[in-house]
Amino acid sequence: MSGNSFGQAFRITTAGESHGPGNVVIIDGVPPGIPLDIDDLTPDLQRRRPGQSKIVSQRKEPDEAEILSGVFEGKTTGTALAILIRNVDQRSKDYSDIKDKYRPGHADYPFDAKYGFRDYRGGGRSSARETVARVAAGAVAKKFLASYGVQVLGYVKQIGKVIAEIEDPASVTLEQVESSPVRCPEPKTAARMIEFIEAVRKERDSIGGVAELVATGVPPGWGEPVFDKLKADLGKAMFSLPAVLGVEYGAGFAVATARGSDNNDAFLVRQNTITTETNRHGGMLGGISTGLPIVMRCAIKPTSSIPTAQPTVTRDKQPTTIATKGRHDPCLLPRFVPMGEAMMALVLADHAIRQAGQSQHLGSD
Amino acid sequence: MSGNSFGQAFRITTAGESHGPGNVVIIDGVPPGIPLDIDDLTPDLQRRRPGQSKIVSQRKEPDEAEILSGVFEGKTTGTALAILIRNVDQRSKDYSDIKDKYRPGHADYPFDAKYGFRDYRGGGRSSARETVARVAAGAVAKKFLASYGVQVLGYVKQIGKVIAEIEDPASVTLEQVESSPVRCPEPKTAARMIEFIEAVRKERDSIGGVAELVATGVPPGWGEPVFDKLKADLGKAMFSLPAVLGVEYGAGFAVATARGSDNNDAFLVRQNTITTETNRHGGMLGGISTGLPIVMRCAIKPTSSIPTAQPTVTRDKQPTTIATKGRHDPCLLPRFVPMGEAMMALVLADHAIRQAGQSQHLGSD
Amino acid sequence: MSGNSFGQAFRITTAGESHGPGNVVIIDGVPPGIPLDIDDLTPDLQRRRPGQSKIVSQRKEPDEAEILSGVFEGKTTGTALAILIRNVDQRSKDYSDIKDKYRPGHADYPFDAKYGFRDYRGGGRSSARETVARVAAGAVAKKFLASYGVQVLGYVKQIGKVIAEIEDPASVTLEQVESSPVRCPEPKTAARMIEFIEAVRKERDSIGGVAELVATGVPPGWGEPVFDKLKADLGKAMFSLPAVLGVEYGAGFAVATARGSDNNDAFLVRQNTITTETNRHGGMLGGISTGLPIVMRCAIKPTSSIPTAQPTVTRDKQPTTIATKGRHDPCLLPRFVPMGEAMMALVLADHAIRQAGQSQHLGSD
Amino acid sequence: MSGNSFGQAFRITTAGESHGPGNVVIIDGVPPGIPLDIDDLTPDLQRRRPGQSKIVSQRKEPDEAEILSGVFEGKTTGTALAILIRNVDQRSKDYSDIKDKYRPGHADYPFDAKYGFRDYRGGGRSSARETVARVAAGAVAKKFLASYGVQVLGYVKQIGKVIAEIEDPASVTLEQVESSPVRCPEPKTAARMIEFIEAVRKERDSIGGVAELVATGVPPGWGEPVFDKLKADLGKAMFSLPAVLGVEYGAGFAVATARGSDNNDAFLVRQNTITTETNRHGGMLGGISTGLPIVMRCAIKPTSSIPTAQPTVTRDKQPTTIATKGRHDPCLLPRFVPMGEAMMALVLADHAIRQAGQSQHLGSD
Repeated sequence: MSGNSFGQAFRITTAGESHGPGNVVIIDGVPPGIPLDIDDLTPDLQRRRPGQSKIVSQRKEPDEAEILSGVFEGKTTGTALAILIRNVDQRSKDYSDIKDKYRPGHADYPFDAKYGFRDYRGGGRSSARETVARVAAGAVAKKFLASYGVQVLGYVKQIGKVIAEIEDPASVTLEQVESSPVRCPEPKTAARMIEFIEAVRKERDSIGGVAELVATGVPPGWGEPVFDKLKADLGKAMFSLPAVLGVEYGAGFAVATARGSDNNDAFLVRQNTITTETNRHGGMLGGISTGLPIVMRCAIKPTSSIPTAQPTVTRDKQPTTIATKGRHDPCLLPRFVPMGEAMMALVLADHAIRQAGQSQHLGSD
Repeated sequence: MSGNSFGQAFRITTAGESHGPGNVVIIDGVPPGIPLDIDDLTPDLQRRRPGQSKIVSQRKEPDEAEILSGVFEGKTTGTALAILIRNVDQRSKDYSDIKDKYRPGHADYPFDAKYGFRDYRGGGRSSARETVARVAAGAVAKKFLASYGVQVLGYVKQIGKVIAEIEDPASVTLEQVESSPVRCPEPKTAARMIEFIEAVRKERDSIGGVAELVATGVPPGWGEPVFDKLKADLGKAMFSLPAVLGVEYGAGFAVATARGSDNNDAFLVRQNTITTETNRHGGMLGGISTGLPIVMRCAIKPTSSIPTAQPTVTRDKQPTTIATKGRHDPCLLPRFVPMGEAMMALVLADHAIRQAGQSQHLGSD
Repeated sequence: MSGNSFGQAFRITTAGESHGPGNVVIIDGVPPGIPLDIDDLTPDLQRRRPGQSKIVSQRKEPDEAEILSGVFEGKTTGTALAILIRNVDQRSKDYSDIKDKYRPGHADYPFDAKYGFRDYRGGGRSSARETVARVAAGAVAKKFLASYGVQVLGYVKQIGKVIAEIEDPASVTLEQVESSPVRCPEPKTAARMIEFIEAVRKERDSIGGVAELVATGVPPGWGEPVFDKLKADLGKAMFSLPAVLGVEYGAGFAVATARGSDNNDAFLVRQNTITTETNRHGGMLGGISTGLPIVMRCAIKPTSSIPTAQPTVTRDKQPTTIATKGRHDPCLLPRFVPMGEAMMALVLADHAIRQAGQSQHLGSD
Repeated sequence: MSGNSFGQAFRITTAGESHGPGNVVIIDGVPPGIPLDIDDLTPDLQRRRPGQSKIVSQRKEPDEAEILSGVFEGKTTGTALAILIRNVDQRSKDYSDIKDKYRPGHADYPFDAKYGFRDYRGGGRSSARETVARVAAGAVAKKFLASYGVQVLGYVKQIGKVIAEIEDPASVTLEQVESSPVRCPEPKTAARMIEFIEAVRKERDSIGGVAELVATGVPPGWGEPVFDKLKADLGKAMFSLPAVLGVEYGAGFAVATARGSDNNDAFLVRQNTITTETNRHGGMLGGISTGLPIVMRCAIKPTSSIPTAQPTVTRDKQPTTIATKGRHDPCLLPRFVPMGEAMMALVLADHAIRQAGQSQHLGSD
């Protein structure tokens, strides 16, 4: 009930705090027989890791994972798969002087109101540190989805007013995304983004942006027609990540000014497959996948922790100021990409299995 | 697993199709002792009902509810509360000529891909007709939330390019919203919206828009720190409604161009309560309520069913055209408002009970 | 959270009280394409119905079901399937004189302690009346299981000291069970049981017994290795039925005096299939089905409501006596059989779908 | 869906295998502010530990736990609490010669049928080794329950035909139970049990038995009226443990021969509290606690692994024999006691929180 699980058929449960011994995830529902070893987890953990480049937090965490269970002789067993990532560079001292202050933009105040104590260790359970467990689980989900030919990829589309024009989201490659530390696949825009982030950091400030996430290869028929629409579960997934204040699919908020005659994507047949030319619907209709690429965007707020002093109050309601001395990201976007991908992969893996369970009788009809 | 339930502690399960005998909802988790009778359900059902004004669908459904269980001597029992709303004006004939065609913008094609059959009866389970059960349940949730002093209210903020300026979302009243059939609380803008919808309807087309939803009176501490963030559950709730392609909180997508120094809402003390002057955070930080009004917006696409002929394909992959002869809304926004409120109320009722269960020991400490 | 749902992948949610308008069940997870109509529900509802013979309660309920959703053109749709059974013969007057008394052996007192009110209408939600919804859902589960070749059958094994010797539980037929109103498949024992129940009834008393439930055709591999062992879910299913005070599998409580060398069923190969000669393990090992018949027994207490006066207390803690004037069963066993079968079928349907979802990759390996 | 979680409001998720790196449990729903440290876990882990006495398995596991999260400054945080117990003495070699054989009485064969591989490492996920995670979680549940004045205690009631007469289950103390390695609180019977187990062990065989579990201090009103009856959840809990083939409450299977007039426990008032003199109902009516001690018994089969050769088959269906060379318990009962207690405590903690969430409005009425 305290919300540490996500998914139904491919279900993850996580635990861990920013400055405790470590983070752990248990995945319940990985089918048996999927080849998996520690090397499948490493790349995404490295993409999420702090200290990977100068435009992200300089906290030094190796983020090495240990598989505790669920893999035997190089394949998943079909039973609970647990992964442990220990915290190493915790530096609790960085936080001791903010022990009684509520950081603006962070969960500190409502967390205290909820639980009755101030977990001053960098946010404790409310820290983005917990996403390391999600990314490890997401790597397992990606491996599973690969058996369906499904690929999940994210990239940075906008930072401040620097916007990348991506003609065809489904054609972006991982190599393009990873060619720049900012994870924008368009090289010139990427360079401008990095320059801009650097400038913001020097001004002791932070900046927001937009990430785009794309899933290709999803067959038509995933997602449920009422509450567990694919767009609903993906929406929950993204909003469960820190700092996400907006989510949209396909045409997104632009539908507010659109007309039905323009907005509908007309069905047609191509290579004996029913499809649409345009993809304003973002790959889902009525919450069920159509076979088109699933395209969504997330708006990420600027990092709340900034080195500049900000007014706030103490636990005993006295006015004060606070300036972050810790190692924080001037822009969350580059490290958001693997987090968003992980959540997207987890949702898709969940619906893949749900659909497999339900549709068992269809083939024999 | 086919996704007909929503919520955990205040959990609804629905069933029903657009052209079947009726729709039913079972609410599991209504605390005992809440005064409730059928009159508590009627107003929101009437606000959602087709045929309520000339700018919505003219399908004639009385939408009268029957409480089947869970209320005894005028109060909730604490056990399963079931509500039945029968379908009356089904007119299946309207749909018979589209039996083998996939309507653009609707779930028809992916539904068929998923289940192996075409439910041509107005979409069947994928029809927005199912939201009648949600609205009935939402009315129960609102009654429960009233015992906390929590109020949920929605209104239309934008239709096409007609945008209402609402200075203080928390000050809008139900009376203002209901003073116009378009449910925009600003009278002059409401008039322009109606005029615009009428014009679009005459052009045999449809138009999208944006609704804003506000919850006041939510105490700090509701919502969970990781997956079940309040914003995550609210996001899923809204995206589970038909035609929603975007959701944002507080500053929303505008955070993409914001800096941390501007975007953070500074904590201060007012009337011995910790609060913030501004509410760019939309009433939640780290996914937990702060005590400020919860403010969110949903982008709704233009109705997919339009009277103008659109190209599409048949089940056996032949090109054809389709024009809707049924009774459809030229703009979904006015009837979306009670649906959005219902989902917001359901999420808040759920978290109210979850928090009550968890925090039982805090008072005695 | 108030426990009105059962199952995960084939999940039922029920509502309804003994003396309210009716009982309803929503089944979430019925795969699409299963042939189903109202006639599939009738037989089990009739077997459960009061008034079916002189040895059961004489309450007159036709127990006619209405399918509200989830079936289209004679087949299940794959979406929520709802069934409504209205209450007809409620006779609330029978209960008015016990309004302030707690009936011994019933939930009256703890129900009041839990919810803060006395639902004197024959127990309200705690009445066995709610099982009508389970039996309707169980009939759907049986229909689904038939597509696997799985059959579920129960019968009365013991009433008081009258015990039926059943050599091979898997060979008992529905016809044998239904040939006697007491539902004991062994005719001579059945006659003695009826005679005995009649004698008990004339003594204004009630009597307990044991029912045996058997599932044949279950393939090896259903059930999960840890918490959701098949025996665990079946055990919960049976204990969730009224009056069940004991459940055992295979050798059951007799294992207390057994030795491993005698108790283990040795594996052997017959017709190229791995099996065992004996079935002391009751068809499950480690909670997973072995392919052998699943055999379990439930101990049912004597009906708590008896016409003889019994000492008890009032809500305001005054001593009093109570004698049941309503129409109650002198022995619960005959009507328990369809209830037990329904719960067994629901558990097996759930695990069938769970296994289908998980094992999707095994075939292709 | 693969069943690695248990509970709803106080929910555990476990992972780990008999011969992998370790076992882990995440508890979701521990309220904040409960004092807890590692010393609270140690006693029960020691009671469950192999090698604790000569009548149990001689596998040498220190079973030292590490709390990974959820405790801060000596108190629970209210967020996910994770505990890791590493495996140390794995001795995989003991199992290598049974790699292709199915052990009688174990899950080996159905596990292989389910997952498509033979986890020959002592059963892998199907090994009783996984219960170490449950016992750790149960210790947390006990600590939480202590704040309600609820105590959970188990003991061995029967081994083979040696039966302890326990007049008043609610008066047995932990000290009495722990005064003998066999965990029977009656010293003379305990001595006979130990003698008997020793004799069985020397005969290279194993023996079954019955454990009794008692919860005192449970207030009236815990448990839900339909599917989540307290007896249903407790039943599932016990049957989810290895080797349990029977569960009964209060009078148990003896109700089969009882009459209503004798079996009902008459309500009376004592010290201004409604109660009953006798407790044939085992502390629950209609699945809801009555305030009387909850009393249940579990039948445990004799250990399947015995040193004597038994006939079985190989994976490729050839007849063979198998004799266990590993370190197994001649009788499972002494180590079952802490496992049964843990599961009972977990169920009660779950219902305590569920009731707290539901009953919030009762007090203010």
